[in-house]
Amino acid sequence: MLNIADARAMGLNPGDRVRVRTRGASLTAILDVTGQMIKQGQVGIFTEAFMHLKEAKSVEISPAPRPASISYIKMLMDRQKLSEDQIRSIVRDIVDNNLSEIELSAYITASYIHNLDPQETEWLTRAMIETGERIYFDKHPVVDKHSIGGVPGNKVSMLVVPIVAASGLLIPKTSSRAITGAGGTADLMEVLAPVEFTADEIKEITETVGGVIAWGGATNIAPADDRLIKAEYALAIDPYSQMLASIMAKKGAVGADAVVVDMPTGPGTKLETPEKARTLAKDLTDLGERLGIRVECAMTFGGSPVGRTVGPALEVREALKMLETGEGPNSLREKSLALAGILLEMGGVAARGEGYRAAEEILTSGKAHRKLMEIIEAQGGDPNIKSEEIQIGEHQKQILSPTNGYVVAFYNKRIIEIARAAGAPADKKAGVIIHKKMGEIVKKGEPLLTICSSTDWELECAVKMCSMRDALEQPPIVVEGMLLERYPTERYPRTI
Amino acid sequence: MLNIADARAMGLNPGDRVRVRTRGASLTAILDVTGQMIKQGQVGIFTEAFMHLKEAKSVEISPAPRPASISYIKMLMDRQKLSEDQIRSIVRDIVDNNLSEIELSAYITASYIHNLDPQETEWLTRAMIETGERIYFDKHPVVDKHSIGGVPGNKVSMLVVPIVAASGLLIPKTSSRAITGAGGTADLMEVLAPVEFTADEIKEITETVGGVIAWGGATNIAPADDRLIKAEYALAIDPYSQMLASIMAKKGAVGADAVVVDMPTGPGTKLETPEKARTLAKDLTDLGERLGIRVECAMTFGGSPVGRTVGPALEVREALKMLETGEGPNSLREKSLALAGILLEMGGVAARGEGYRAAEEILTSGKAHRKLMEIIEAQGGDPNIKSEEIQIGEHQKQILSPTNGYVVAFYNKRIIEIARAAGAPADKKAGVIIHKKMGEIVKKGEPLLTICSSTDWELECAVKMCSMRDALEQPPIVVEGMLLERYPTERYPRTI
Repeated sequence: MLNIADARAMGLNPGDRVRVRTRGASLTAILDVTGQMIKQGQVGIFTEAFMHLKEAKSVEISPAPRPASISYIKMLMDRQKLSEDQIRSIVRDIVDNNLSEIELSAYITASYIHNLDPQETEWLTRAMIETGERIYFDKHPVVDKHSIGGVPGNKVSMLVVPIVAASGLLIPKTSSRAITGAGGTADLMEVLAPVEFTADEIKEITETVGGVIAWGGATNIAPADDRLIKAEYALAIDPYSQMLASIMAKKGAVGADAVVVDMPTGPGTKLETPEKARTLAKDLTDLGERLGIRVECAMTFGGSPVGRTVGPALEVREALKMLETGEGPNSLREKSLALAGILLEMGGVAARGEGYRAAEEILTSGKAHRKLMEIIEAQGGDPNIKSEEIQIGEHQKQILSPTNGYVVAFYNKRIIEIARAAGAPADKKAGVIIHKKMGEIVKKGEPLLTICSSTDWELECAVKMCSMRDALEQPPIVVEGMLLERYPTERYPRTI
Repeated sequence: MLNIADARAMGLNPGDRVRVRTRGASLTAILDVTGQMIKQGQVGIFTEAFMHLKEAKSVEISPAPRPASISYIKMLMDRQKLSEDQIRSIVRDIVDNNLSEIELSAYITASYIHNLDPQETEWLTRAMIETGERIYFDKHPVVDKHSIGGVPGNKVSMLVVPIVAASGLLIPKTSSRAITGAGGTADLMEVLAPVEFTADEIKEITETVGGVIAWGGATNIAPADDRLIKAEYALAIDPYSQMLASIMAKKGAVGADAVVVDMPTGPGTKLETPEKARTLAKDLTDLGERLGIRVECAMTFGGSPVGRTVGPALEVREALKMLETGEGPNSLREKSLALAGILLEMGGVAARGEGYRAAEEILTSGKAHRKLMEIIEAQGGDPNIKSEEIQIGEHQKQILSPTNGYVVAFYNKRIIEIARAAGAPADKKAGVIIHKKMGEIVKKGEPLLTICSSTDWELECAVKMCSMRDALEQPPIVVEGMLLERYPTERYPRTI
């Protein structure tokens, strides 16, 4: 940062690149200017850069060229095709933090408006793989699972990973933490064991016990995505080709041979219609083919939460109980077995059409439970943990049905908001237990939800959200009698 | 700025809005997070915001909704039509600094890719006018001039304003400083007098002497533009509808009845082809009609510099000399009289077709010179200044022709770069005198250019740029004999 008078004298404007030199060290920085904060003749430099410059007392500043990738981003705005080198140059500059937020946002916005074509998307994916760490397994096949997300309570990875690992396949699962949700798989696994590992540690754990459930953000795998998410989040957009590339880059970087993609579909999810899901499935399998990765996509019902819990500890308790007993909510059991079964088939350890049954056998035999305990131990957690030992928020309140009837509406997004209000995902013990789902019969005074939290004020805040009934907010669950409305009867035949 | 652990515990992410409250004061801020700079339990706040919060020792932080304009920017990305209220909401948030750089960049990028339609552009212009200060003159007509820019040495406003003001019309000219050029009109006028005035002062000066040449950036007229320019500069784009709106908003805000727009056209300018200029002219006149402002556009030759000087003091000296003597380079004289003549006709003080001649009379009679002196005095400068008294850089070097021949190529952009290397526009005395222009005959050893600077090292740097001849850089002027190249003669008739 320079004083505006100095910048003007040097013919420099905010956003320009400058070379900052001192004896034996130099760096390129993006210029900003100020009228007051920095005096004339002085330079403001971030601590990190200052350390890189060896805390020099004086520096030399000169204009530096802009990264070429800015002109490639401009080409994308004009929807000219990009070459492999041009795409690699953009990704490289994103990873190296050479682009300002303005420039990054222009890239995200342009790639949201103009989808990349399949060839460009392949190059983008390869560039994202190459600019990060990679894992090369000695043993194959390596399989992986990804979920498009958007459905609450989606704890299936806690079941799929141990089932698949117990079958002898390798599954090095890196997961995200929740950004807008109530708990990502990494948030869940962290209830049981540490989840922050380097790529080398992920390789070692996977080769030892067959699987891992780690937080991807702690690795340097496909790091471009971590930078892009900030702008995507700020703009609340998810550019399509970028999403395809981000998914497949993470899978490509860990050397996956086969991947199953969970596509929750339905109202309130990211894939509102089956058509959208089918298009995504085709694009993902095509991209996989270009990269030498077999992809199968599973369209799953995303209209209701998976299982009956939302929030890290509650979800882990539900998943662990299913591993212990082989039983639990149908939605969770069927979805987990179906996805695991697809991977068993793709990995060649179950015949086509036999995957589900094979997965079920691994679950009910207790092998999957023992495998998760091995994974927990390998990640540094307690391998003797029991589902009932998992602590949940002690501040609890039940939401009761105001009337006899049926659940006629159930809003996933409101359930997530309530779990977040209760403290999830940072408060691992916070969340929502769902007693009644869409279509279920309920008596007046029966519990619909139980909300859990570690603090009473967060609990109160979450409870308050359940009763909102203004023009903008829906209650999470609507119960009505079977006769919903009565229309006036037409007394006289109409004449046209 | 919060520590990342606190942000996570509150379910907040970078880019989220937060309400910061203390006893008796509150504000909305955009959240960023850090791992180290801010400790848990602490909050980082910019000095300005801290002062607004009365330097409170403790604050309360709560989530706040995002501005609705972000969803309207998303609509623009999806190319849905925007309503007047939606456009006003975007502009209001830009002016109030409620949008982050990521969000601002998304707006600029989306409006670059998707042009607004004429109705939306009108609303955008009106919103830009309404969100800033306005000037209401008691006397009319008020006229104004704008140049699309892109041609070096374009000092015509220094002549047009006094000619028009001398005719009895009001011309409250606000101008820009150079960003990428060698001198904007505001940089030029500042050689003669102060240029930073409030809207009230601009009104007063204009009503007293008929005209003003002020720096628009010092006013609060159409302030949205000042914010947008930062992102446009960083991305090196100039979204079309935004450009139309920015031009007309400044004219609308000062209450202009009639506007002439100078459109330099030709290779190296912003309007490379006459077609582009004609489209722009139509769109500007249409927009003017919607706003009740009569607009005429003048396509001017932009292939060569206007006059023979580039850089503030040099340009002012050339313009002032023309006002003193009535004579000077044809390109400058004709262009200034043509543009001034159009305004005299539009303002009703010259008959249609008589404007040029009327402007010429005002110039040669010395009335325009006396008027500029009045304007200089009203703005606080020396009204007795003579052209030969204007100081130019004492470090000078001539660039000589390497051969007998003709100027066969002349690169405007290189001339600007050389003037900037010599120190312009911050060093007002720096610049380039052009001895030979395109097509002129020149003898070996005759001067092509004279470079002036206040420092010898900047002079050397500028001189060095004249001799560059690598693959990327062209010399500013190319001199060749009339016979440019000899092709091999075909000795034998071709057979097909």
